[in-house]
This record gives sequence, C-alpha cells and structure tokens, in this order.
Amino acid sequence: MSERIVLAYSGGLDTSVAIGWIAEATGAEVIAVAVDVGQGGESLETIRQRALDCGAVEAYVADARDEFAAEYCMPALQANALYMDSYPLVSALSRPVIVKHLVAAAREFGATTVSHGCTGKGNDQVRFEVGIQTLGPDLKCIAPVRDLALTRDKAIAFAEEKNLPIVTTKKNPFSIDANVWGRAVETGFLEDIWNAPTPDVYEYTADPDSGIAADEVVITFKAGVPVAIDGKPVTPLQAIEEMNRRAGAQGIGRIDIVEDRLVGIKSREIYEAPGAMALMAAHRELENVTVEREQARFKKTVGQRWTELVYDGQWFSPLKNSLDAFIADTQQYVSGDIRMNLHAGRATVTGRRSESSLYDFNLATYDTGDTFDQSMARGFIELFGMSSKVASARDLRIAEGK
Amino acid sequence: MSERIVLAYSGGLDTSVAIGWIAEATGAEVIAVAVDVGQGGESLETIRQRALDCGAVEAYVADARDEFAAEYCMPALQANALYMDSYPLVSALSRPVIVKHLVAAAREFGATTVSHGCTGKGNDQVRFEVGIQTLGPDLKCIAPVRDLALTRDKAIAFAEEKNLPIVTTKKNPFSIDANVWGRAVETGFLEDIWNAPTPDVYEYTADPDSGIAADEVVITFKAGVPVAIDGKPVTPLQAIEEMNRRAGAQGIGRIDIVEDRLVGIKSREIYEAPGAMALMAAHRELENVTVEREQARFKKTVGQRWTELVYDGQWFSPLKNSLDAFIADTQQYVSGDIRMNLHAGRATVTGRRSESSLYDFNLATYDTGDTFDQSMARGFIELFGMSSKVASARDLRIAEGK
Amino acid sequence: MSERIVLAYSGGLDTSVAIGWIAEATGAEVIAVAVDVGQGGESLETIRQRALDCGAVEAYVADARDEFAAEYCMPALQANALYMDSYPLVSALSRPVIVKHLVAAAREFGATTVSHGCTGKGNDQVRFEVGIQTLGPDLKCIAPVRDLALTRDKAIAFAEEKNLPIVTTKKNPFSIDANVWGRAVETGFLEDIWNAPTPDVYEYTADPDSGIAADEVVITFKAGVPVAIDGKPVTPLQAIEEMNRRAGAQGIGRIDIVEDRLVGIKSREIYEAPGAMALMAAHRELENVTVEREQARFKKTVGQRWTELVYDGQWFSPLKNSLDAFIADTQQYVSGDIRMNLHAGRATVTGRRSESSLYDFNLATYDTGDTFDQSMARGFIELFGMSSKVASARDLRIAEGK
Amino acid sequence: MSERIVLAYSGGLDTSVAIGWIAEATGAEVIAVAVDVGQGGESLETIRQRALDCGAVEAYVADARDEFAAEYCMPALQANALYMDSYPLVSALSRPVIVKHLVAAAREFGATTVSHGCTGKGNDQVRFEVGIQTLGPDLKCIAPVRDLALTRDKAIAFAEEKNLPIVTTKKNPFSIDANVWGRAVETGFLEDIWNAPTPDVYEYTADPDSGIAADEVVITFKAGVPVAIDGKPVTPLQAIEEMNRRAGAQGIGRIDIVEDRLVGIKSREIYEAPGAMALMAAHRELENVTVEREQARFKKTVGQRWTELVYDGQWFSPLKNSLDAFIADTQQYVSGDIRMNLHAGRATVTGRRSESSLYDFNLATYDTGDTFDQSMARGFIELFGMSSKVASARDLRIAEGK
Repeated sequence: MSERIVLAYSGGLDTSVAIGWIAEATGAEVIAVAVDVGQGGESLETIRQRALDCGAVEAYVADARDEFAAEYCMPALQANALYMDSYPLVSALSRPVIVKHLVAAAREFGATTVSHGCTGKGNDQVRFEVGIQTLGPDLKCIAPVRDLALTRDKAIAFAEEKNLPIVTTKKNPFSIDANVWGRAVETGFLEDIWNAPTPDVYEYTADPDSGIAADEVVITFKAGVPVAIDGKPVTPLQAIEEMNRRAGAQGIGRIDIVEDRLVGIKSREIYEAPGAMALMAAHRELENVTVEREQARFKKTVGQRWTELVYDGQWFSPLKNSLDAFIADTQQYVSGDIRMNLHAGRATVTGRRSESSLYDFNLATYDTGDTFDQSMARGFIELFGMSSKVASARDLRIAEGK
Repeated sequence: MSERIVLAYSGGLDTSVAIGWIAEATGAEVIAVAVDVGQGGESLETIRQRALDCGAVEAYVADARDEFAAEYCMPALQANALYMDSYPLVSALSRPVIVKHLVAAAREFGATTVSHGCTGKGNDQVRFEVGIQTLGPDLKCIAPVRDLALTRDKAIAFAEEKNLPIVTTKKNPFSIDANVWGRAVETGFLEDIWNAPTPDVYEYTADPDSGIAADEVVITFKAGVPVAIDGKPVTPLQAIEEMNRRAGAQGIGRIDIVEDRLVGIKSREIYEAPGAMALMAAHRELENVTVEREQARFKKTVGQRWTELVYDGQWFSPLKNSLDAFIADTQQYVSGDIRMNLHAGRATVTGRRSESSLYDFNLATYDTGDTFDQSMARGFIELFGMSSKVASARDLRIAEGK
Repeated sequence: MSERIVLAYSGGLDTSVAIGWIAEATGAEVIAVAVDVGQGGESLETIRQRALDCGAVEAYVADARDEFAAEYCMPALQANALYMDSYPLVSALSRPVIVKHLVAAAREFGATTVSHGCTGKGNDQVRFEVGIQTLGPDLKCIAPVRDLALTRDKAIAFAEEKNLPIVTTKKNPFSIDANVWGRAVETGFLEDIWNAPTPDVYEYTADPDSGIAADEVVITFKAGVPVAIDGKPVTPLQAIEEMNRRAGAQGIGRIDIVEDRLVGIKSREIYEAPGAMALMAAHRELENVTVEREQARFKKTVGQRWTELVYDGQWFSPLKNSLDAFIADTQQYVSGDIRMNLHAGRATVTGRRSESSLYDFNLATYDTGDTFDQSMARGFIELFGMSSKVASARDLRIAEGK
Repeated sequence: MSERIVLAYSGGLDTSVAIGWIAEATGAEVIAVAVDVGQGGESLETIRQRALDCGAVEAYVADARDEFAAEYCMPALQANALYMDSYPLVSALSRPVIVKHLVAAAREFGATTVSHGCTGKGNDQVRFEVGIQTLGPDLKCIAPVRDLALTRDKAIAFAEEKNLPIVTTKKNPFSIDANVWGRAVETGFLEDIWNAPTPDVYEYTADPDSGIAADEVVITFKAGVPVAIDGKPVTPLQAIEEMNRRAGAQGIGRIDIVEDRLVGIKSREIYEAPGAMALMAAHRELENVTVEREQARFKKTVGQRWTELVYDGQWFSPLKNSLDAFIADTQQYVSGDIRMNLHAGRATVTGRRSESSLYDFNLATYDTGDTFDQSMARGFIELFGMSSKVASARDLRIAEGK
C-alpha cells in the first residue's frame, strides 16, 4: 500500500494544485481535508468534489463552526486575547481546530504525513506543525510551497497543464485568511507601511462613515460567555455571527498594525473582526464590574501570556492548559448584561447590570446611604506608604551625607 | 510664631472655605497653594487674590503646565499608561506635581503641615499624602473634609456667614478634576451603572457624530516624545494642547468605566482625554515599528506595573524610578512619523515611517526582493516545538497506561 | 443575652489574661478557641481546662493537624512557596486554618466578634482580620494588645491579681510561633541585625555540625504531594513530621533573614523548617524532571504571586483561588521518587526517577542511541535570533549615521 | 586572497583538529582565538603556539579575566541570576565575552566567518551564533562538529595522521566547561538521572564533609558589587577568586539538576560555583536590608527574565539592555557589609550592616524606643482587605441564591 498524506485543503488554486504536486513529488496518495470554520464561500460539498476531481483519493470535510466558536473563540474572549493589544488572533485560533481534524483524518485514513499550504516565513506553518507534532508525535509534516518549490507561477502552469477544475488568475493581489472570528488581509501595496488601506481591502465591515443609524444592543453573558443578545438566547457561534453582522454594518473592528511575527520579522497586517471586537469590549467591561481587583490585575499578565502562546502556535502546550485553568476560575462570576451602542466604527458600553456585581452603590456613592467609613483611610495611607517613606528618608539622609 | 499649614487651593468653594475652617479648627496660619496644570478657568492672579481675601496669610501660585506636560504626561505616554486598559491616569498624574509644589511651599513658608480637599474614600487622598510623606517625611497631613468634618452644607453656611468672595450653590451635580492630560467627571446619576452619560457631561470633546470633516495629522516623535505636528515643532505641552483641540473636535477620547479604586471599592468614572488618547495610539504604533519583539512584550508587563503604581499614588517610590529607567531605555529608537486620521471618535493610524524602523521590507515582502531564507523554518519549528512535543508524548504514554 | 466574643487562645499568659481583660473591657462573654496545628506543647484538653479556669464561658478545641498539613502545607509545597526566596510561610499558612475554626466557633456559639492576641505592627493581625472579614463579613475584630492596651506588664499584674492558673515571667526573651510546617523566633538581641543567632534559639533543628552520620531518604510524590517515604506510605502530616525529625536531626532548614513585612517595615526573623525545606528541595527537583519548560517558567511567576498573597493574608481571596487552579494543573504529572542525602545542614538531591519524566535519555545522551537531529539547529538559531539581529543591525546603522 | 575563518580555540584536541579540518573542508585560512576567562590550565602563550603548530595562520589571545568578572559576572550577581533557581549561568556568561573577542578578531584579520566547537544539541551553539549574528550581522557561522561531521573518533584519527602536537585519548569521560564564575561537568554515567555524582566530578570544591574549621568572612559591597573582603579592597575578579578559594575549601556551591535546555530537551548537569554562590547569598541578604519591598518584589520578575534571556543566548539583545537599566537603578543603595560563616557546604549570613539600610530599629523593635503607631493598623487592614471582603460577600450571596 502507498504512503498516504493528508492535506489541509481550502478549495483554492494553491491547495488544489498541491494535491497532484505532492502526489508527483512523493508518490503518496493524498487525502484532502476541508474544515469549515466560518470562512464563507463555497459549500463543503463543492469543495469535497473538487478535491476528488483534482486527484485526492479521499476527501474529509467537517463543519467545525460550532466547535470553533465554543472551544476556540470563547476562550479567546475570556482571555481578552489581543496580540500586541490589537489583533484578536483570528488565524492563530483556527489553526489548532484544523490541526485536530487533520490528525483525526490522518488516523482515519492511515496517513503518516500531514501537509499544509503555508509558506516558510509566516506564523501559520509553525502553528500547523507544532500542533501536529503535539497531537501526533509520530506524524511527519510537509509544506509544498516551502519544501517542494511550489510557486504561484508553477501552480498556474500545473493547473492548466492538468486541466484542473479551478479558476487561475495570474495574480490575486490579496492574500486572505478568514473565519467566523475575523478576517486577515495582506497585499503588496500595504507592504509599504506608509500606505493606508484602500476600501476594497474590507469585506466583513462596512464603511464606518456610511451614515446609517446607531444600533443599541444588550449582550447577556454567563460565566464569561455570551448567552443571549437582546434577550434572545444564542449559541457562541450565533453570538459571533450576529455581532459580525451588526457591528460589521457599523464599521467596527478594523485593525491595521505592524506586527511581530514569531519567525522574528515585523509584517504589516490588516484585520477586520467586528463581532470579536464588540464582544470583547462588552466582556472586558463586565469583568470590570464582577472581577476583584487583584484577580483582574494578575489576569492581565495571564491573558498576555495566553495570547502570546496561542499566537506562537502553542495551543496544545502544557502551559496553555494551566493558563486556561486560571482563566476559567476567574470567569465564574462574569455574568450579567452589557448594553452597547454600535455606531460609526465605535462599540461603546453604555450600561452594565449583574447579579454578581462587585460594584456596591452604598460604598461608592457620595450621596445619602454612604456606608464607607472614611476614618479608616488615615491608617491605610500611613502603612500603605510606609516602605516608600522609609526609603525616601534613607535617600535624603544619604544625599545629605549623614 | 503660629504653626503654618499649606493648603492645596483650587479657588472653588470647598478650598476657599477650608482656609478659614482650618485656621479656626487648628489655630494655624494657612498658606494657599494654587498650581496650574492646564485645568483652565480663572487666572492664577485671580485665584491668588481670592485666597488672600478668604484669609490666607500667603498665596503661592505656580504655572506648572510645561513641567506637568514634560515630566509627568510624557512618561505616561512612553509607558502607554492606561489603567485597566482604559484610563490615562489624568488625576493620578497631576497629584505628584502638585505635591512637589506643596512641599516646596511648605519649605519656603516654614509650614509643618500640608492640607488638601480630598474626601476619605477616593484615590487622591492617598496620592497626596503618600507623596507628601515621601518628599517631606517630617510633614504632617490634614484633610478638612475627612478629618475636620467639613461637609458641603457646612461649607456653604460658612461662606455665607463669613461673606467669602465665592459663589455658593446648594448642589453642583458634577464633581470634576481637569488638567491638560484630561478631565474626570463623577456625578450622582452615573452612580447607577446602567445609566449612560448625558451629553452635558463632556467639555473637552465634541459629539463624535457632529458630522464635521475628517482631520489628517502627522505626528513626529523623537525618543518616544512628540516633537512636531504636521511638521511644525512643538513642546510636549503644545503637542497635548493641539491634539486636545483637534482630536477633541472629533469626539475622540471619551471613556466610561467601572474602575477599581485603591481603597478597595469599585466606582463609576467618566473621563475625556482627546489629546492623550490620540497621542498614545500614535506612540503605540510607532513602538510596533521600532521596538524589538521581546523588549515590547516585557515592556507591557513593566508598563502595567508603572500604571498601577502611579494610579496607587506611588509616583515617588523606588520601584517607579527603576521602571522609568527600563522604559527610558526602550524609547531611544522610538522616533519617526505617524500619520493619523481623526474622525468621528476614532484616531486611526494610516501610515508610519521611521529612520529607526525594524520593519524590513525585504524580509517581509512576498514579492521580488525577498531575502528571507525559508529553509530555516523547519529546524526552527522542530526545536521551538520540542518541549511541548515531548510533554505531549509523555501525556499520551501515561494516558495509555504504558 | 450578652454579646459573645471568640478568642484565638494559645494557653499562654497573654491570651489567658485576654479572656478576662476582654470580658472586663467589653462586657461580653468570651469563648476560647484553641487549634492544634502541630505546635506541640500542652494537650488540647489541658488548654481547654485552663481556658475555662481563666473565665471563658466555652472552650472550642480542634485537632487541625491533618487538615493543616493537607490543605495548607501541601499547596505551599506545590507552589514552592518561599517568601523572599527564603521563608516557607510558616505562620502565614497557619493563620487561615485558625481563622476557619474561629469563624466556625463564632457561628456555633453565636458570637459577633473575633479576637486575637496580635500586636499592631505585625503581619498576623492582617492575616487574622482579613481572613475573618472574608469568611464572615458580618463579624467584627478586636485585638486586646493593640486595641485594649494589654501590655505584658499589665498582663502579669492581671494574672497575679486574678490568681490565674498560668506561670508568669517578667520577660520571656523569645517570641515564638510554631506549627508542623516550621517555627518562627523573634527576640530582642536579634533586633541588632549584626548579631548572629545563638544556639538556644533553635528547637526543631539540631546543630548541623553535630557530626552524626548522613541519612539517605527516598521520597515518593504523587501529583506534587509526598505519599511515601522510603517506600512506606505516609499522609501529608506524617510526611512533614518524619522529615522534621530526620532533616531536623541534620540541622537542615535554619533561616535568618531581614524580611519585608506587609505593614511596610523591615524586621529580623529566624525560622526553622527542616521538613518543609527538605520536602521543597525534593519537590522542586521532581518538577525539573516532569514539568515542561514554559510551564515551569511561568509557574515561577505564579508561585511568587501566590507566596506574596499568602504572606499578605489573602489566603481566601479570589486571586488565590485562581492561582491554585493554575498550580493544580501543573502538578498532575509531578509524580515519582527523589533520593536525597540529608547531612550537616544540607538536603541534597542525588537521584530522581519517574514514570512521567520528560527527561529523554535518547534525546539527551551524547553516546550511542542519540535520536536528536542536530541539523535542525541552524534553522532554529537563525529564526530564534532574527529579531535581535535585525535590531542590532538597526542600532549599528543609526550609530554610523546612515 | 583566501577567505578567512576565526575559530574559538581552547587548545584541546577537538579545536586543535578543527583548525586543519576547517581548512581542508572549506579552503579557508583559519585564525585561532583563545580567550582566558579564568578557566585555568595552560598559559595563553602555550595555547597560541599550539594553534600555530596546528596550522592556524594567526593566533589571537586575550586575557579577558578582569573584563569577564567586571562586565559579565557582576551583572549576574546584581541580578541574583540562578537559572531554574539553581544554576549561576557559568557557561552562559562566558559565551558573550568570547563572542566579543571573536568578532574583534574577525574584524582585525578580515575574516568573514566565525567557527566554534559546539555540537548541535546544546545551548552554547545558540549563544555563540546569536551573539555573532548580533555583533556582526554580516558574519557567517560554522560549527565543525555539527556542520562538518567532525566526530571524536575522526578527530583522533586526524590528529594522529597529521601528527598534531596534542595528546589524544580514546575517550575522556568528562565534558567540562570552566571559567572563574564556575565549572560545568557532563559525563556519561550521569545521563542516568538516578545516579549520584562521584567525588572525582568536582575540582573547584573540596568535600563539604572534610572536617576543616569554619571560615568567617566579611564582604563589603558598594552598589551591588563586592569591593572588599575582610576589609581588604578587591577587584571583582579578586573577589570571585578569593571566594572560590575559601568557599571552595568548604565544599560550597555544588549543584546537580535536571535542566531545561533552550533546544527543548532536558539534560542532567553538574556545576560547582563556590565563589558565585557565596557572593550571591551575601548580595541577596544585603538587598533584603537595603531595597524597598515593592522594588524587591518586581526585581524578582526582572531577574528571572534576565536570567532566562542570558541562558537563552540573548546577552546582546535590546531587552537585556533595558533590564540592565532597571537592575542598575535598584543597586545604587546596595552597599554595606555582610558577615558570613563558610562551613561544611553552607554559606550562612550571620550579620549585616549598612549606611543605606532600610531596617529601622525603632520601627521594628518591640522594646523601648518603638516609634511605630499601632493605631494605624485598623484602617490599613480594613481598606487593604476591602476588595476581597466585597468579593467574598458576593460569593456568599450568590451561593445562597439571594
């Protein structure tokens, strides 16, 4: 029996060509694996058929949208995961769920190698291969673009020569990765970092200055996860989709940054993530209301490390699991309603209410009903400032040469 | 000779009354100290005269606007200081510069005690008193509202009885603190955290939906500090003032959060900081371009601690000094231009250029000229993922009972 | 019915006097609560009787040794908790278990106030009162030494006047707190930090230079907890007790530091914790063998925060719970044997073996059997060093003015 | 003109052979570079001559002992740098100073490539090559053992065939790296981590149980650096050498751990570092006396990151520089005397005195002279515990379903 290779298959030109290219280069049988993480576009059935038409011996397709939303996007929401304070980890989150299906397919079809379409200078190759190594330490990895010299020009020539059922264009200016959590765009003219993005870059978000009316929404969370929107129960997937639609219509969630890649270079990236950014704004303010101060302060350190780890392709690492345990513990009281105004590119929290609120009106108010004992403050200040005061007195003493 | 007390004096009702109230309660002579940190309103000369008219034996006034901008706001900008990821430390920054002048006035006029108008449940009392303890370990502190039972009703009665030259109103709904870095507002109806702010709360910012045209600005930084706007050289103070004007006109920099106070309670706060927020957005993106990845990652931890320390009134602490040394070292190459679009509440970076950029087009590009050696990636991935892979193999081995 | 106050009762002079002192000062009935955390000395029955003889209306005694060892000492072991890298939190760990019993006693006997014997300048008052506030937010706290002016001289006079069944000495030079996890000693002549401790300070540890023969021990851990010693199953309490005995005989675990108290001052402290220090040395090395690198690195940050929190009396805080969740997750594979040599004040690990080891002989060896692919290293080094290299090239470019 | 390669040359078999091996494999001229970092053994003159005898076209030798002690070991001391709480970075510290001389030699002799004797599975290859990439971004790296298949057997055969002036032994059981800061040993039988080290492993330290008399030493520090021992002024190098001698005689500073290598594997390592460990114990206690609490707490986080960075070969990285700035700021008051007892493997601090001490006898004492105002404690406890108390009340409320 031939060796078998599973290939992460998108249905596009590059991976359609990769099916035959890998087969020719290695002599192996190729099994195409397509995973729906909400990227839109063609149906899984269409993609499955194309894979077979392009020479795959088997095609494995999976609708992983609910799994992705619940098990990958929700933890990111709970971690308030924004890499470099900006990027909601769109592609970084989808890689591990795809890896899980790639490894499952490899087991099902007896493959020994896993293949993906990434280049050798991005983050995604690391995320795929570290994930695969971790879930299947016996599996090998191969990347045709990086390891088998599959350039775009060669892909077009191959597709035409083999008459593959796929449209070929000399040059698609945009390199895109999308899923329900957001959309990432790279394109040549943005490699000049003084250039601003043009309107055609965006697809998930309308022009923030379109002039449509503001949209008020109330999001209900339970233990850090959205469970209802405007009172109507939602699954995690539905919550993201509805907020993509409504926040997207208001132009919310456009991101444009110079980003530190794991492979050591800086790159220019454009993202749009309307649902993710609106949900995160709501979640953060609900945490402000329900999470104790010191827990919240340390959670920032934990969330930063979680975000770096996931960006760096370490989703399945031991540290990631331990950070998850910390974060889960912090979320048990993050329940309640957040009212937001969505308008003109802004997702503004305007109200919050929660059964598990730590905001105590009677402690906070300056009006009648104040229960805060102000006489406690002097002692607090004295001891809270003691160590600095003693140090300062020392510094003065030394400075004066005494 | 009588004992002397210096009083942080604003010119308003409460501190005007405090002059006489303290004198009566303690028998001491009161010296009023007014510091201009860009809060606007009356002239220092008017305030000086009122202090004397209200019974102060001396009045010390200082225009500290440039000092405040350069030595307090600029370090906050370099630290990207946002408490709870939102609040640019408006009041927390002005307290130490006022403390410095209070202590200087105490030395100049031979006072033994420093007084301020804060209540006993806020952060500012801590910031004042820890600062004073640190700069003048021998000085005592007294707060008439907290320690001498000076309520608003008593203040009004006292002002009327003594015929003080100050307007008294039964109830001002807003409690405001302002300086050039921003403006803080608390008011009764916002103590219900489900209520949204009303338009009359704001003064530094126009309605973001006013419909005025977008404003493009280019900010030039040198070592983390803005030195020119649209090519015209500016001082730190001028940079903040101009950005307050231009970003304020676009409704940028409104903040509404439930905040963790140092004294252990949560409170609802409204801020507006148009210049601060726009400058910080520009500064952060310039750091993305010019600061190395690991330095940037650790700087977030340092910046968070810096922000917590300053919020907590520890401006003059030893740790603050050491964090400053770290931050200063990171800023030496944070130089270059950031182009921003200011519009409808959004400050959006659209371009960056820098002589000290770490963005390397030839490493980043996917086009002709690419110098990145993609064959290096396999070895990197193998060793980068090794420790997780070994752990995962162990976990599988244990799970299978081998 | 009179108000009732529960008192943390040790059986010693100060708290014996406090029973009557509190009753006289407040008119309340006093319930004595004695908790055995392994401090040794008199039996709980003797202490109970003395409490009643001294005027307590009820006496509540609890043998909490197993609870303390399992639920307080073991988490500290798993956290490798050494405050300032030195102090194994002896007293800081016992306070929360005593608090739990104090609050239970208050509930059982209908008390509204909890009292303890601490002074106003130490850490323990904070640990007691923050713990009590947290477990019983309705309970009040009172400390006779701090709040009711109960000095040692007054205590002696009171005991003599009331003829209390307790030995009074004008001046005990040592102030001691002990439990099964260790022993803390303060004494006047050590307040001169140039003075070395004298031999009579120590009780849990013999002279490390006694010359007795070395003792080899094998400690078996399961999930971060010792479960057998030299092959004989042990409970957590037995593990600590046996290691106290054996490591104590070798003079292991003496600590002498200047320590940062929570109340802002530095103090000189002597501790001895033979079992704790030996167990921790073993546990740390077993972690070295079984915990993945990045998990281990971040666990140090978590462990430091855990240690500070517990030192600072925040055992029952939300952050402590979340840190516990993190640590528990890291411990699941910390199982195996550690062989140690105990001798002359040193606990030296000499061997480790574990079914869940991450040490892979075939990857590590330089001999036959090596499976490590050295050709991977070049790619790793290239990309691992990339961001520093790019930064360095930038710095050189700027320095040369190009 | 031929290409030229500089080679890090030790004078031993492997690098002596490498001179000719590289020349044959590449056709380049080889320049040998020998750097004295206190490793002992042969004179630089002897080593220089052997390099030339083995075919080097030039030999560059440098006595870098003072430079290494002052600029590499002292920063490690100030950082209290112990990797995994145990390993004082012996080899990790010497690599950058050797790199500096390698790059200087490459510039002086017009070389384009730098070569070293490391294998492909250790840390040192990373430290060398990342350092070289950083100081000389244009320089290439080559490692004969890893890249040119130079095994020990081939080295012996080559040496015999070419009649090189070097002793060849079939198998040296020990792999050793040494410098003035310590000594690292790996050897086959220790790759079984259940085996204890044998006495012949050690060279810098005598048997701790030798029975020689205890040695009392007073070390004087200025700004975190030892400047006198027993009152006699010393340079950093002299301080380390004297403490190596005296602490080594007492068997202090033996280390035996399973360590996390940068390349992702765990390895067994034996170190001895008598001077480093004794100096660090003294330095840490002097910090306890002179550094303010919050500064000390955060410095641990900084020190851990510094240690990881240096272990990971990032000595010349931007983050390392910024961490240095932080640490330098913390050291300005770390001045004074530490008295230690060196005996039987233990370096025990017995006294400390400092002009810049923050230990305040009058605040700390429980005797006459106490200036600490205990009445301040109640307010402190109330507000310090407030946020936990509010959270706990919330948890109870939720648990009771109210």
